[in-house]
Amino acid sequence: MRTLVDLNADAGESFGRWQLGDDARLIPLVTSVNIACGWHAGDPATMSRSVELARDGRTAVGAHPGFPDLTGFGRRAMSLSPAEAAQACLYQFGALQAIAAHRGVPIAHVKPHGAFYGLTIRDEAVAEAVVSAFATAAPGVRVVLLAGPVSERLAERGFPVMREAFADLDYDDNGHIIIEPNPRAKSPEACADQADAVLRGEVRSVNGVPVQVDADTICLHGDRPNAVEIAEAIRERFASAGVRLAPMAEVADSRG
Amino acid sequence: MRTLVDLNADAGESFGRWQLGDDARLIPLVTSVNIACGWHAGDPATMSRSVELARDGRTAVGAHPGFPDLTGFGRRAMSLSPAEAAQACLYQFGALQAIAAHRGVPIAHVKPHGAFYGLTIRDEAVAEAVVSAFATAAPGVRVVLLAGPVSERLAERGFPVMREAFADLDYDDNGHIIIEPNPRAKSPEACADQADAVLRGEVRSVNGVPVQVDADTICLHGDRPNAVEIAEAIRERFASAGVRLAPMAEVADSRG
Amino acid sequence: MRTLVDLNADAGESFGRWQLGDDARLIPLVTSVNIACGWHAGDPATMSRSVELARDGRTAVGAHPGFPDLTGFGRRAMSLSPAEAAQACLYQFGALQAIAAHRGVPIAHVKPHGAFYGLTIRDEAVAEAVVSAFATAAPGVRVVLLAGPVSERLAERGFPVMREAFADLDYDDNGHIIIEPNPRAKSPEACADQADAVLRGEVRSVNGVPVQVDADTICLHGDRPNAVEIAEAIRERFASAGVRLAPMAEVADSRG
Amino acid sequence: MRTLVDLNADAGESFGRWQLGDDARLIPLVTSVNIACGWHAGDPATMSRSVELARDGRTAVGAHPGFPDLTGFGRRAMSLSPAEAAQACLYQFGALQAIAAHRGVPIAHVKPHGAFYGLTIRDEAVAEAVVSAFATAAPGVRVVLLAGPVSERLAERGFPVMREAFADLDYDDNGHIIIEPNPRAKSPEACADQADAVLRGEVRSVNGVPVQVDADTICLHGDRPNAVEIAEAIRERFASAGVRLAPMAEVADSRG
Repeated sequence: MRTLVDLNADAGESFGRWQLGDDARLIPLVTSVNIACGWHAGDPATMSRSVELARDGRTAVGAHPGFPDLTGFGRRAMSLSPAEAAQACLYQFGALQAIAAHRGVPIAHVKPHGAFYGLTIRDEAVAEAVVSAFATAAPGVRVVLLAGPVSERLAERGFPVMREAFADLDYDDNGHIIIEPNPRAKSPEACADQADAVLRGEVRSVNGVPVQVDADTICLHGDRPNAVEIAEAIRERFASAGVRLAPMAEVADSRG
Repeated sequence: MRTLVDLNADAGESFGRWQLGDDARLIPLVTSVNIACGWHAGDPATMSRSVELARDGRTAVGAHPGFPDLTGFGRRAMSLSPAEAAQACLYQFGALQAIAAHRGVPIAHVKPHGAFYGLTIRDEAVAEAVVSAFATAAPGVRVVLLAGPVSERLAERGFPVMREAFADLDYDDNGHIIIEPNPRAKSPEACADQADAVLRGEVRSVNGVPVQVDADTICLHGDRPNAVEIAEAIRERFASAGVRLAPMAEVADSRG
Repeated sequence: MRTLVDLNADAGESFGRWQLGDDARLIPLVTSVNIACGWHAGDPATMSRSVELARDGRTAVGAHPGFPDLTGFGRRAMSLSPAEAAQACLYQFGALQAIAAHRGVPIAHVKPHGAFYGLTIRDEAVAEAVVSAFATAAPGVRVVLLAGPVSERLAERGFPVMREAFADLDYDDNGHIIIEPNPRAKSPEACADQADAVLRGEVRSVNGVPVQVDADTICLHGDRPNAVEIAEAIRERFASAGVRLAPMAEVADSRG
Repeated sequence: MRTLVDLNADAGESFGRWQLGDDARLIPLVTSVNIACGWHAGDPATMSRSVELARDGRTAVGAHPGFPDLTGFGRRAMSLSPAEAAQACLYQFGALQAIAAHRGVPIAHVKPHGAFYGLTIRDEAVAEAVVSAFATAAPGVRVVLLAGPVSERLAERGFPVMREAFADLDYDDNGHIIIEPNPRAKSPEACADQADAVLRGEVRSVNGVPVQVDADTICLHGDRPNAVEIAEAIRERFASAGVRLAPMAEVADSRG
């Protein structure tokens, strides 16, 4: 069983006048935070505030680029070419990087959001374009992808990929996550159970089929109404099991 | 008379399906180029192409952040607070920086576009917020502002400000430029005359009033229909007068 | 003292994933509702839901066009020409009209939002362009403007203008309202007092200066946290004073 | 062979500072024009100018709603639910309707643009939601869909559907059109040949497979560089063959 893992959450998902999520409470509970970069959520002022919360909570900061779809919160599928996908990620990553640099905070990772994540894990040409763009444009920045065949292949080729599993989403029998348009509250204990299963290397699909996972980082969603309670339940479970939480960089170094 | 100056032009002002300007011809004729960053013009693919043209033309690259107003091409006044203005510049600068890094190209300067430029030169609190944000977030990046009292004061306080004058815009009696919503063709010779006057330190307003200018860089507008001819006329005039063109960094170093 | 008046509120100010205001409770408490039309708030699904709430609550529906500024919630000043302003209002009005027609609901009025309202009441050429465009394009639709000299002049010229006063905003000594970027809770009793003062024809500015008002409709803001309590306080005050609330059309007819 | 048909073209595809297409020459050559409504092209000022050109050219006006994707010109696939699709069409249709009403021009039809058209012809639930929304919200307005099984079924159920074929796009063996991201010049004679084939009821796919078509209206693309020449070639061909061009309403009436 794995005893060192990163816990990541999406945050910074407010936009202008509209508030979403409880970043002030959630960010200190995770070791990495994925901050929305303006295309699906997160205007510059929100991005700046989220970076400050992460700095104060000693949480590592990553960019969370989404589709250009504020209305759909980046959760509606769009067809982007590999080149368009890579540029969309670079654009949003860079925007966050400059805003974070103003607060003295570096960007450690990047992780596509919502339906963009879905495109990346289903279309290997997109995944490769994104990973390869970051290897050139931002050496040292890690790209978070669903733990599975695509991320394994890219990692084997030497790209800085972090393999991710989910504590608060269901899996289908093919090992794909099932994205909810509007996340609802879930049992914190059930999420902690699933996080525990991830560390043991196998989760169950919605049909009870075993799905192998080998994950460096575990995700939970900041816009789920009880995201804070879920984060607390996972932390308690891990603490009592002797599992240590650490940012991605440390987890990656431990893999050698 | 000044014998070393930068010549800068706005470029990358296409957007998606829509083309504007003749970047392939214009960019090699100037020593610095200001590339639109997505808010008033310039989608990621356009940004990437413009960076490649600049790299191939050995032209220094700057970010050209605008107001979030595609419909108005960033030429309609908007009221942004100093903090909003600084974050808007950082966001767009960073977006371009990451896309340019993918092509191995650094960003040398930043210059607000259109009505954002107008806000910056009229509202000293905005100018200071922008300049000070870049001093922290992007050391070494120069901020281009209209040559005049505000830029002088900020330069004296040690901020990396480049003072700019215009070859293709009229001045009013207060030394403010008069922005055209849709630039029309202008006499290349008249623009070369005005560029020459800038180097001598004094231009004439539309009413014939003398306006003192002390400029490190001279601007022309890439969306003017005959921008290429204007650039060529200025280059010829300078060549015959023994004036050397060089990117901002070199001009700044020569000032000591 | 006036004994018949309309009570209007802004609603439909959610956007996609983000909720704002308590429309389900607020809309039945007012006689007219101003529904955001997509440029500063209010995506099509939100617009459709707001129309249904108004239909069910027997509340008259108006369009609430804003500046194209989701980030700033339409509360940042922008410079639009009179023609641009008129077209922006028509565009958003028409969009709501078609969505409402799908639910069998007509649009009774139009009222610019936030900084667009501010532009309209300060720039008489803008106000005239808007009012005159609706007189041509949508006969019978009333345009809501701040009670004061501009709306008086337009009403005298025969345009269908409704004069508005505010229960929950302060006035300056010139009779202009003072717009809050992010409305905070206010005393419901103080708002009811001001609504009462409006009916008597005179409110007090923040400096205690008397300001004359002759208003057909009284506004309160749906994104104020205690908007529902304010609406209830005003309704109680009016009920006990024998003032009847009715939609704008009825108020207009009663004026003759 | 059919001897009465509508010829429609997309127009109004400029946006703010950016020009696209030659509307002034193209619009008078067709009998119906589909005007972009702001989401993929066409700001309010452009919409208003296009309406004026149509009015002056005695060309019937339709709305051309697109996906909310200015960067991709509405040509990138997006996943919209049937309800979202219907509301997106209503929103954009209504916006154009109000702007056109200001010029005294009615809207005769609606036709989704680009990838939205692609979604509508492939997803029958989307097509039905759109058609049924217009039947309720805008009685008399016709919805243009690709001639084929989906449009036949909806027409048989009594919805006001216009069946469309294409003069300037290739067909695949299934009778689906092949959309070009950036249309290039095509042989006007070849397009006239295909228009002629449409009237005879059968076109050839790119592989030479016969595809049956029964079309009320024939489309050509306004952003094709030689769109004007193509329109002229089709008009000449039809004139010499005794085929009369008329707006959709007249064609629909002739079908009985």
